[in-house]
Amino acid sequence: MQNRTADEKGLIKVSIMYPYAEGKTFNMEYYETKHMPMVAAFLGSNLVKYTIDRGVASGIPNQPLPFMAIGTFYVKSLSEYQSAIGPNREAIRADFANYTNITPVILVSEVIK
Amino acid sequence: MQNRTADEKGLIKVSIMYPYAEGKTFNMEYYETKHMPMVAAFLGSNLVKYTIDRGVASGIPNQPLPFMAIGTFYVKSLSEYQSAIGPNREAIRADFANYTNITPVILVSEVIK
Repeated sequence: MQNRTADEKGLIKVSIMYPYAEGKTFNMEYYETKHMPMVAAFLGSNLVKYTIDRGVASGIPNQPLPFMAIGTFYVKSLSEYQSAIGPNREAIRADFANYTNITPVILVSEVIK
Repeated sequence: MQNRTADEKGLIKVSIMYPYAEGKTFNMEYYETKHMPMVAAFLGSNLVKYTIDRGVASGIPNQPLPFMAIGTFYVKSLSEYQSAIGPNREAIRADFANYTNITPVILVSEVIK
């Protein structure tokens, strides 16, 4: 039986990061119950899991909160992810207005450990 | 037996995020084998796990890589994390020069899912 770290090592993460700024809004309830499940459904068996974080604070005193929320898809293949998202990109973007007025930053990363 | 998602829900994540910019360097081998184990050892049983990501690309075409690396500590208690790090902060900062010239952004977040 593999342990949890070994399960994730080598996977690709696509992290959709919503920067905090004054006047920005984010509806976590909609994001968790509607938006993320919609996108996850496009990804099929390439999706290993997805996670959602709610930003709480900066870890550095007197610094603003860096991100209000981060949604992360753990996938086996980046090219399969891109192929699955491509035809659905407009539907995904159109749903943004239902939960946020933030333009996200998107990071593709590899799990080292 | 709990599943993986249930294990992490409600945990606090402290994510140390290293923004990419021209001229910035990051030694992943040192980070993985020396720096992160050193910090993890300060955290004791409050630490559930830690992860390391290597930034690969922006998920948005023609945008620069947002972060070169992210190290994340999953802890049960933020106040215990802060108590453990406080007396070791100077040792941790002094080690930065051994692997990077980047000033990190630090996000405290809560695992929603």
